[in-house]
Amino acid sequence: MPANVDHDAKRAEIARISADLISEHGLQAATIRKVAACAGFSTTVVTHYFANKRAMLLAAYRYVAERSQERFDAMAADYISDPLLRLETLLPIDEEGRNAWRLYFQFWPMADHDEELASEQRWWSENALSLARQMLESACPDKGDLDRKAILALSALHGIAMQALFDPQNWPAHKQREIWRAQAHILRARLPS
Amino acid sequence: MPANVDHDAKRAEIARISADLISEHGLQAATIRKVAACAGFSTTVVTHYFANKRAMLLAAYRYVAERSQERFDAMAADYISDPLLRLETLLPIDEEGRNAWRLYFQFWPMADHDEELASEQRWWSENALSLARQMLESACPDKGDLDRKAILALSALHGIAMQALFDPQNWPAHKQREIWRAQAHILRARLPS
Repeated sequence: MPANVDHDAKRAEIARISADLISEHGLQAATIRKVAACAGFSTTVVTHYFANKRAMLLAAYRYVAERSQERFDAMAADYISDPLLRLETLLPIDEEGRNAWRLYFQFWPMADHDEELASEQRWWSENALSLARQMLESACPDKGDLDRKAILALSALHGIAMQALFDPQNWPAHKQREIWRAQAHILRARLPS
Repeated sequence: MPANVDHDAKRAEIARISADLISEHGLQAATIRKVAACAGFSTTVVTHYFANKRAMLLAAYRYVAERSQERFDAMAADYISDPLLRLETLLPIDEEGRNAWRLYFQFWPMADHDEELASEQRWWSENALSLARQMLESACPDKGDLDRKAILALSALHGIAMQALFDPQNWPAHKQREIWRAQAHILRARLPS
């Protein structure tokens, strides 16, 4: 393997391990020492890739957000007949999705006091908004007001994910899908001016 | 003032001060010592009302949730012509609402690892669902499927609040209201079976 590929792969591996620790045990748990131990590296190896814990946490966040995007992309063929429903793949409907949302929730209090992280989150939020808009564009016969509809779509997804995360027994995957389908359905209506 | 009234008032005062510290600086900041200092009490007074920090945090959460309910109740007369819109008073559209949501966000990571707090949150979530259902019942001519519509209403409110909190510049009060009005409008449509 060429050196830079190995470098990128190791960096991603560390980000993945940090992300798992954050999802499972919170931001405090993802120390450089703990991550190094889980990866089977020395702490020196970890600090070679990340100057400090904060840089490692940011990479973990980005790793998970990028994986969500990849999962969304990979599902295109399965939702050709109803692209709007494809947004359900962003919900915590399986273990990976659930871990992603748990990680996002761990980061929120930190973002409230950290402008760089808040800005990273806004970027991903804009990205999700743009996915929602694209799906609405393919799905809605009426092309009016897609910007506001994209916001309504994203708001519903956020709200469903939030409730599903804190009340998993009341929010199994099939209920999350059903509620999203209902929202997708009413999004086809015309909005008030 | 009779002793028990004084007792309740002091307890509420401590809960309020804890809540302010949590909203502003996070859960870590709301120590018994700091709360005592802000209240002008000794730590002994605070521990007279709350056995430990965790009990005090739970009281802070409950204090804020109860205040949100009171604010919602107080606004009934202003929304007689469109009760569904009244749910917008639960959004972070003013300083008190914004501080309430900041506090909720601070608690979420903790609730992910604390069953008692998770259960308290579920109770308040059920309460909000029941408010949404009541408003839908007064607002919708078609009484079908109000349970699912209440979930869609609450999901949208959660999602709007979440985005407004982390991107306040893009989500001023008038935008939150506009997006909620659009959602309230489409909630009048019939859901898929």
